[in-house]
Amino acid sequence: MTCASLNFRDSLMVRGAYNPKQKLPLVPCSDGVGVVEEVGAGVSRVAVGDRVSPIFAQKWLGGEPTHAKLRSTLGGPLDGTLAERLVLSEEGVVHVPAHLTDEQAATLPCAALTAWSALTGYTPVKAGDVVLVQGTGGVSIFALQLAKLLGCQVIATSSSDEKLERVRALGADHTINYATQREWGKVAKDLTGGVGVDHIVEVGGAGTLAQSLRAIRIGGQISLIGVLAGNQQDLNINPIFMQAVRVQGILVGHRESFEAMNRAIALHRLVPVVDRAYAFGEARAAFEALAKSQLFGKLCIRIGA
Amino acid sequence: MTCASLNFRDSLMVRGAYNPKQKLPLVPCSDGVGVVEEVGAGVSRVAVGDRVSPIFAQKWLGGEPTHAKLRSTLGGPLDGTLAERLVLSEEGVVHVPAHLTDEQAATLPCAALTAWSALTGYTPVKAGDVVLVQGTGGVSIFALQLAKLLGCQVIATSSSDEKLERVRALGADHTINYATQREWGKVAKDLTGGVGVDHIVEVGGAGTLAQSLRAIRIGGQISLIGVLAGNQQDLNINPIFMQAVRVQGILVGHRESFEAMNRAIALHRLVPVVDRAYAFGEARAAFEALAKSQLFGKLCIRIGA
Amino acid sequence: MTCASLNFRDSLMVRGAYNPKQKLPLVPCSDGVGVVEEVGAGVSRVAVGDRVSPIFAQKWLGGEPTHAKLRSTLGGPLDGTLAERLVLSEEGVVHVPAHLTDEQAATLPCAALTAWSALTGYTPVKAGDVVLVQGTGGVSIFALQLAKLLGCQVIATSSSDEKLERVRALGADHTINYATQREWGKVAKDLTGGVGVDHIVEVGGAGTLAQSLRAIRIGGQISLIGVLAGNQQDLNINPIFMQAVRVQGILVGHRESFEAMNRAIALHRLVPVVDRAYAFGEARAAFEALAKSQLFGKLCIRIGA
Amino acid sequence: MTCASLNFRDSLMVRGAYNPKQKLPLVPCSDGVGVVEEVGAGVSRVAVGDRVSPIFAQKWLGGEPTHAKLRSTLGGPLDGTLAERLVLSEEGVVHVPAHLTDEQAATLPCAALTAWSALTGYTPVKAGDVVLVQGTGGVSIFALQLAKLLGCQVIATSSSDEKLERVRALGADHTINYATQREWGKVAKDLTGGVGVDHIVEVGGAGTLAQSLRAIRIGGQISLIGVLAGNQQDLNINPIFMQAVRVQGILVGHRESFEAMNRAIALHRLVPVVDRAYAFGEARAAFEALAKSQLFGKLCIRIGA
Repeated sequence: MTCASLNFRDSLMVRGAYNPKQKLPLVPCSDGVGVVEEVGAGVSRVAVGDRVSPIFAQKWLGGEPTHAKLRSTLGGPLDGTLAERLVLSEEGVVHVPAHLTDEQAATLPCAALTAWSALTGYTPVKAGDVVLVQGTGGVSIFALQLAKLLGCQVIATSSSDEKLERVRALGADHTINYATQREWGKVAKDLTGGVGVDHIVEVGGAGTLAQSLRAIRIGGQISLIGVLAGNQQDLNINPIFMQAVRVQGILVGHRESFEAMNRAIALHRLVPVVDRAYAFGEARAAFEALAKSQLFGKLCIRIGA
Repeated sequence: MTCASLNFRDSLMVRGAYNPKQKLPLVPCSDGVGVVEEVGAGVSRVAVGDRVSPIFAQKWLGGEPTHAKLRSTLGGPLDGTLAERLVLSEEGVVHVPAHLTDEQAATLPCAALTAWSALTGYTPVKAGDVVLVQGTGGVSIFALQLAKLLGCQVIATSSSDEKLERVRALGADHTINYATQREWGKVAKDLTGGVGVDHIVEVGGAGTLAQSLRAIRIGGQISLIGVLAGNQQDLNINPIFMQAVRVQGILVGHRESFEAMNRAIALHRLVPVVDRAYAFGEARAAFEALAKSQLFGKLCIRIGA
Repeated sequence: MTCASLNFRDSLMVRGAYNPKQKLPLVPCSDGVGVVEEVGAGVSRVAVGDRVSPIFAQKWLGGEPTHAKLRSTLGGPLDGTLAERLVLSEEGVVHVPAHLTDEQAATLPCAALTAWSALTGYTPVKAGDVVLVQGTGGVSIFALQLAKLLGCQVIATSSSDEKLERVRALGADHTINYATQREWGKVAKDLTGGVGVDHIVEVGGAGTLAQSLRAIRIGGQISLIGVLAGNQQDLNINPIFMQAVRVQGILVGHRESFEAMNRAIALHRLVPVVDRAYAFGEARAAFEALAKSQLFGKLCIRIGA
Repeated sequence: MTCASLNFRDSLMVRGAYNPKQKLPLVPCSDGVGVVEEVGAGVSRVAVGDRVSPIFAQKWLGGEPTHAKLRSTLGGPLDGTLAERLVLSEEGVVHVPAHLTDEQAATLPCAALTAWSALTGYTPVKAGDVVLVQGTGGVSIFALQLAKLLGCQVIATSSSDEKLERVRALGADHTINYATQREWGKVAKDLTGGVGVDHIVEVGGAGTLAQSLRAIRIGGQISLIGVLAGNQQDLNINPIFMQAVRVQGILVGHRESFEAMNRAIALHRLVPVVDRAYAFGEARAAFEALAKSQLFGKLCIRIGA
């Protein structure tokens, strides 16, 4: 690999907090990008010299997720991308958009695809829909960028006015500082003329769900992404059935979606936001920064020369 | 109307517990059946003498639910079906299957349609899918009967072996006594060879959600029906995103679905299960029986001669 | 009405060629815009002074099309919009985006909604998809503009290089002059790297279908719009099943879609392309221009002062 | 393999009429069943002794069809199942229902899955829907059986009253002899009270399409299966867009669907209809019988002892 990128899942993994059954040591990270150095006999999907990213679950090429498919995930249970070389099936990689640097391309497999799957995978958003994204972590920034590219209106939240200014520059139509506006769910709903938000990409920080259920419209979707939820979260279910809300757990996505997303990213020349790129020797510092959750976009680790 | 039927929502309504803003007095009940006595000029959907049921939300003819559509619901906020005569728009009624008695037909508008919407409305089940239903209330019995008619395999739960025998007679493939098998979620999953249940019609009794999340397969759907949930229910969200579960709130359904369901009911000559039919003068006793939640199917109240 | 707009259907209608059973005389045109002058008792969807457009089929508010719903179409069988005043149900109108002139707003009910329904209604396109539009008539120009707003890549065809330049200015990514490139289906497929086009908005001119079937990808959709097909069209079905193509007839759309489209148009400040606006007294000339099919966008007729 | 089964496609293939580029000689047939004799290292999906069927396109495990996936089809371009032994990837086989004989199980991979994909794959039918099947070939009989299992009402056509009696015994609700009732499309529509049929499984015999378009309801689906169409078929497109019909080409289906179908077949103990089973030495006679298209169900060829 030339570059790996980090997800909150990797932070849990290296601390042994993701899955108690995970065997260690483990090469961490599911995301990255590299160049094909060698191919076996009969390989037709890639050629030597191609720049590719591995897919998150190596056997999830399309269709519904299953245990068998998910057991093939990189960075746990399988060894991951924070390595100079990987041997992967040709089925387990995709070409990445040409306009991206290695650091940018490295961020796509998990965070970007999770946001894309949320917005397009089950009940797809359409142009004009109102999408709410929370904070400025990797998935949320991608959700903002991809929602704009899908023609949606975006409401973004953060506790920092400075970060809100940056998300506005990325295309957010409305912003809410949830530190000063604690009832941000009501504020968001008011921004839609009282109808409610069509789709919320919920990253699961403490107490956000109750506000999300205030913000959502009747029949709307809350996509549950687990990036920040290491601890238990409770959800009052009454508003769900009283308003016919769909709470949809999102599990990254499959290769077919990854390729569709890459086509959209290439067409729109979308540029992933890299908060900071670390050298390979600074990997520990990268993981420490990740655990602090004060990011604006993605963290990367450069590998090799 | 010749007959009304009761839903748990009606029980909350008459106690003022459904919506504090609801003005009282109110004619209760959303469900019932009657014969058209008179039609206005230009009416073409029905004729004098037709046997019809009102639809739950009088303005929800099709498409997505909205506040405007839901504000037209009978039995609160609008006056309901426990009355000798109703004046309704021709758009607000549907013909009922001919093979049903009035008592049976009266049960369809809310409970049956809720079960039908859960199974066919968002991510439809298909033949061979495993559906789990909880207890023997109106929605659950309909969910069992409709799931069988859709070709599914059904697992039913109850705390009574005698009731489990009755649901087996109605077609349940597997039964679990949750009083003796507290970890019924695991039992249900084992019945599917460890894969998990495809679709759970969750009626929200205390503590069922945690077991439902154990029973459900990766990518499965839990349809949330609020029939028994007057009190707050908490839901640990981690299993939702870890397994890409869809938790879908269900809000009865629209006229187009009601008509499609009636066609299926007529084709299969499905017979709704009426627990007991009360005389009009016994209405109070009917509501008291409803509140006890010890039913097997639906309660009705006969109106008129 | 302050303005009506014309569709090819209106041209067939006034010549008695649309439906031999249609009674004449008839007030033609389904599309237009006007201001509410008066409302009846209990009306809540609109108020005096609101600028609204009628919906194409007055009873198709949502859900599936049916004979009963379609019998309520303006401009045949019912009297249409080329009139100073119309009496309509509040259910049969929608508010139009504020940034549009009357002439622009008048074009939405049939042509724009048909394009929107094709792209979002059955199998929705997503960002990155390749959409092909044919010629520069009303539906095709809307399909181009709406496809861009949905994040798609657009290939446009025309027999005029000058018009192709204009569609490029509207956002078309690729253009093909079908007069000089008779095998434009192959050209389009080559533009996609040999994969094929995801979605073709087929307006049915002679001989286009065979080329569309060459251009489409395996599993792609051809949306059939009947605007130009007065005469019989034959379709060789072999490529349809050999490539799992979906040929989807498109019937304008319902009110719920119209409102969703208007929200998207308002958000993106999309401006409909009006080829020419005629005075009321020039209505005959407008219909004659319509029949010639040499348009770039829509024709309108101004009504009133 | 212990048994292979024949599809009309195989008949075209052996005559060199399916694809002029197909290299011969070729081991024909895509369908069959056999027992696993040996497995390679790391194989987990199957074990020695398992009874399995190959999937039609060896690389189409799920998701959308693509050229790359379809190039892996057995019986052309790849060698097929009319052979004593096959070497296949573990990904390219599925377990078959235990209640079936080898001859019955051999019929599933192409004909049964095509019918299942038509009914459940794009716009799934639901209980109560009216499905029309044409004739008594393999796909049509499976479509009848599977439609019943999905809760639908079935109209079946044939030119033989004796065969119509047999399809009634298999569950057909209504039958039409198209030899005596040439306007069978109108007859079928009348059977639905004038509304029209919801879904037609169109096997493409001469002149059937025009009648199918008379039979279909507004918004209904015609699934195009190419089994009998070697010659060109023309389709008048006007009724398609005037009635918002969906004409959906069907390409067998993927492994995920095959497994879902097998689960439904096992649950309902559906028994495929085998017209006749030939010995391996009678293979030529089997292909000759196939070409005559006078079948009731499927033809098989027993292999081995």
